[in-house]
Amino acid sequence: MRNINNSKLRIIPLGGLEQIGMNITAFEFEDSIVVVDCGLSFPEDDMLGIDLVIPDVSYLKENIQKVKGFVITHGHEDHIGALPYVLKDINVPIYATKLTIGLIEHKLKEHNMLNHVKRKVIQHGQSINLGAFRIEFIKTNHSIVDASALAIYSPAGIVVHTGDFKVDYTPVFGDAIDLQRFGEIGKKGVLALMCDSTNAERPGFTMSEKTVGKVFDDIMSDHKNSRIIIATFASNVDRVQQIINSAYKYGRKVVIEGRSMVNVISTASELGYLNIPDKTLIDIEQMKNYPDDQVVLITTGSQGESMAALSRIAANIHKKVQIKPGDTVVFSSKAIPGNEKAVSRVINELSMKGADVIFQDAHVSGHACQEEIKLIYSLVRPKYAIPVHGEYRHLKAQADVARSLGIPKENIFILSSGDVLELNADNAKVVDHVHTGGILVDGLGVGDVGNIVLRDRQHLAEDGIMIVVMTLEKYSNQLLAGPDIVSRGFVYVRESEDLMEEARAVVNDAVNNCLEKGVTDWGKLKNVIKDALSDFIWKKTKRNPMILPIIMEV
Amino acid sequence: MRNINNSKLRIIPLGGLEQIGMNITAFEFEDSIVVVDCGLSFPEDDMLGIDLVIPDVSYLKENIQKVKGFVITHGHEDHIGALPYVLKDINVPIYATKLTIGLIEHKLKEHNMLNHVKRKVIQHGQSINLGAFRIEFIKTNHSIVDASALAIYSPAGIVVHTGDFKVDYTPVFGDAIDLQRFGEIGKKGVLALMCDSTNAERPGFTMSEKTVGKVFDDIMSDHKNSRIIIATFASNVDRVQQIINSAYKYGRKVVIEGRSMVNVISTASELGYLNIPDKTLIDIEQMKNYPDDQVVLITTGSQGESMAALSRIAANIHKKVQIKPGDTVVFSSKAIPGNEKAVSRVINELSMKGADVIFQDAHVSGHACQEEIKLIYSLVRPKYAIPVHGEYRHLKAQADVARSLGIPKENIFILSSGDVLELNADNAKVVDHVHTGGILVDGLGVGDVGNIVLRDRQHLAEDGIMIVVMTLEKYSNQLLAGPDIVSRGFVYVRESEDLMEEARAVVNDAVNNCLEKGVTDWGKLKNVIKDALSDFIWKKTKRNPMILPIIMEV
Repeated sequence: MRNINNSKLRIIPLGGLEQIGMNITAFEFEDSIVVVDCGLSFPEDDMLGIDLVIPDVSYLKENIQKVKGFVITHGHEDHIGALPYVLKDINVPIYATKLTIGLIEHKLKEHNMLNHVKRKVIQHGQSINLGAFRIEFIKTNHSIVDASALAIYSPAGIVVHTGDFKVDYTPVFGDAIDLQRFGEIGKKGVLALMCDSTNAERPGFTMSEKTVGKVFDDIMSDHKNSRIIIATFASNVDRVQQIINSAYKYGRKVVIEGRSMVNVISTASELGYLNIPDKTLIDIEQMKNYPDDQVVLITTGSQGESMAALSRIAANIHKKVQIKPGDTVVFSSKAIPGNEKAVSRVINELSMKGADVIFQDAHVSGHACQEEIKLIYSLVRPKYAIPVHGEYRHLKAQADVARSLGIPKENIFILSSGDVLELNADNAKVVDHVHTGGILVDGLGVGDVGNIVLRDRQHLAEDGIMIVVMTLEKYSNQLLAGPDIVSRGFVYVRESEDLMEEARAVVNDAVNNCLEKGVTDWGKLKNVIKDALSDFIWKKTKRNPMILPIIMEV
Repeated sequence: MRNINNSKLRIIPLGGLEQIGMNITAFEFEDSIVVVDCGLSFPEDDMLGIDLVIPDVSYLKENIQKVKGFVITHGHEDHIGALPYVLKDINVPIYATKLTIGLIEHKLKEHNMLNHVKRKVIQHGQSINLGAFRIEFIKTNHSIVDASALAIYSPAGIVVHTGDFKVDYTPVFGDAIDLQRFGEIGKKGVLALMCDSTNAERPGFTMSEKTVGKVFDDIMSDHKNSRIIIATFASNVDRVQQIINSAYKYGRKVVIEGRSMVNVISTASELGYLNIPDKTLIDIEQMKNYPDDQVVLITTGSQGESMAALSRIAANIHKKVQIKPGDTVVFSSKAIPGNEKAVSRVINELSMKGADVIFQDAHVSGHACQEEIKLIYSLVRPKYAIPVHGEYRHLKAQADVARSLGIPKENIFILSSGDVLELNADNAKVVDHVHTGGILVDGLGVGDVGNIVLRDRQHLAEDGIMIVVMTLEKYSNQLLAGPDIVSRGFVYVRESEDLMEEARAVVNDAVNNCLEKGVTDWGKLKNVIKDALSDFIWKKTKRNPMILPIIMEV
């Protein structure tokens, strides 16, 4: 008889390490694979023109017969956003809590996939069997309701995966994180803990979401006479609930604006995650029928995203809302790294129009700080620690926390995407590395923009392009037309006529020189043109536009 | 006899409001203009390929006979960086303190202008007469030594301009800010105060630069066995002094790395602003001769700038320094808004190579917080308040501080660049607006990249370019060659052959259709090609590359 104790669990992160976003991890035991989360990430600054990035799931495709399902911890884009793309290749059932499934269904609808994908709502405390695995959903708190940690039971041992979480003893909706269950499972003996690292650099405790509610009360009481506009994350249902509560208390109607917020709020509302007093919510069209001091507008755009409602309001290009002196605008958010300047631009624009802008104190994080991470480690007491969710610096910070709790260095694994960690009670080791990576999505194209295209876009962005065209006679190689130079993104031609004229002369000389020498290799001729023109342009301007010679034969 | 009391002082900011950077303000009284500062700004995210931005000084050019000189408050790029460009048109003498002049001279040398520009070193407490004005230099503290506030005496009254400043009671080098003199001038009666707004949103007091010295001592004491690398701002001479002090105390040699830092430190050292114990400074080539625990490397790159020394070290492409596990890397800086992600990338790279990265507590700001601003207002007691240096939100925050101190709303002016504020003891009013703006510098080109070129670069960056070329026979309009399509930055052609083939067919049909109809207007033909191809590409890919038809006639 086979001794299953010799078999090992394999944990294979296919994304989500080395960066914020694109969370997806495969758990493999013999013939079974379950996949936890399937998120997207947003493009880095040098990914010009790219809309989003999804994980390369080649490993899952190669092992498709093993894959039993997707288990999703919560409904944020970095955990569900790649599903519509990945499901095209890996169409297996999805398991998640009610709101999470609701948000996934909205996504599937947009991609016309709703009827082709199986999905099942799981309640906290409930378990599902998937091949060799049993997966238990455990209640946690996060900046979106219905978030779950997972206890992943395998023949090689139990892995606890926190998902994104914080410890909120006084949540706005539903129960606090089920610390008892973490303790109970810990008592059984846990092989490995995979814990959220996002805030692992921060000492202390993350404040309860409820503290933000008090801030809203204060703001409404301090700004009784002004219209109040509050920008926050579209998916933060609890935050919206608290704004609605304060608005109701101070006799204000509430307007929701911004496509993604309307989506999430209507899904959350239909599923019973929001408690909106009758006649509190009004349509944006009705806003004009109420005096300023009886309205609160909740909107997207807290990150300064140029197309979001608040940015359009600030720039005076929103069709239905104009800023007036005396308006109070609250950022119930903090700037995600990379968005600071965009947020600041919106704050400046609002201030210039006379709005009173409040951008501090009306936000708390959704992620656990160091003391909460210590709490979870102390309840779970894992043999191995595998920090997840974060850039390397965050994973490292959690590793330091784990070490401070007495977990030996050799039992802490800072993995890279693609690492295959094989483990059981005796041993844990990275034994292999599978192919992973980000696939760029640009418009409808998935993966058709790669490094060469991106490098070209960067080159074009930096200094523009100069196109050299000419027509040659086949056989005789006589120059029939051109060489002409057309440029875009290089200089404003009307103001640089001399430069362009000289450039044309340089190219002309180079071409004639080549043709006189009897060069018939157009590749060679193109290189001569490139070299001559780029030398000339660099000398004159210290710039390096892309140079593209095109030769037509007649 | 003319009654000079009827004449008014005109204050005309030519840049520096609405943004951080590009500080330059004209003070005009009858036939005299003095210009305070002449800085550059760094390009915004959408200014693709631009190196720097300088102010449009058309107003000074138009009034060149009035301009008496540039008075410079301190040696930061946003106060001196545009001088070499502006001096080409407005060659008047420059007045500043010793280190500031030293840094300006370095700049002029780089532009081969040193012999063509008059400059004069002024000491704190000293005054100069420039036309109708007398300008007094007052000692302040800032993140670069030798910073000055200016008392600008005009027949219409005194204006106090703080420059960038903080109040440091225990500066590293030289004296504390001359608060007595601010008080003394205040007692005479000050017409207007133009005060630094950078930190006006922050309550409290900025800590003394000296507190950072204690942090360096702690770091060196806590990391006795590791090599220490400290990144900071190239121009922060006091910071470098304190690192040198700590290094000396702990028996370490100091290496300076990074071109801009070597420049500033050698200038500051020559002029006596740095006190370096004998044999403390060693060349980077000598570093290998010392054990790790006897070396401190001070470097540029604290903002994650991709070409700076620390970034190259982190990316393993620095020729002389490689990170080893156990190295301690200190960021003695904070990320300037917009640089957060780049800084984070460098931190991650360093951590992955095993370095211990310290990025908190080893920095203080160089700008005054609210309590310091209140102190200056209370010493100067101006009639009018004109917040300067900062984005609108910062100016607004200072205006709020001024109001809290009892300055009436109508006496507080948040100006825009170009506003002409006319003022005397009786009255102050914006009476006019002159032309201002930013001139883009790209390589050697000054002003040859404008909005059209930038828009093209953005378009190219987003979706690339498709070039359609063809050769037609003159008169007969017969298609002799093409249409061919060449693309860059659009898709990777080898993987999108079908799409490109279909695109060619679409263009071919459009061209043939036009030619059959007898169209001879190439502009019209080009538009038909553009429309047909962009419709097709949008439908297939939801992308919008630039489409550039080129027609050659033979």
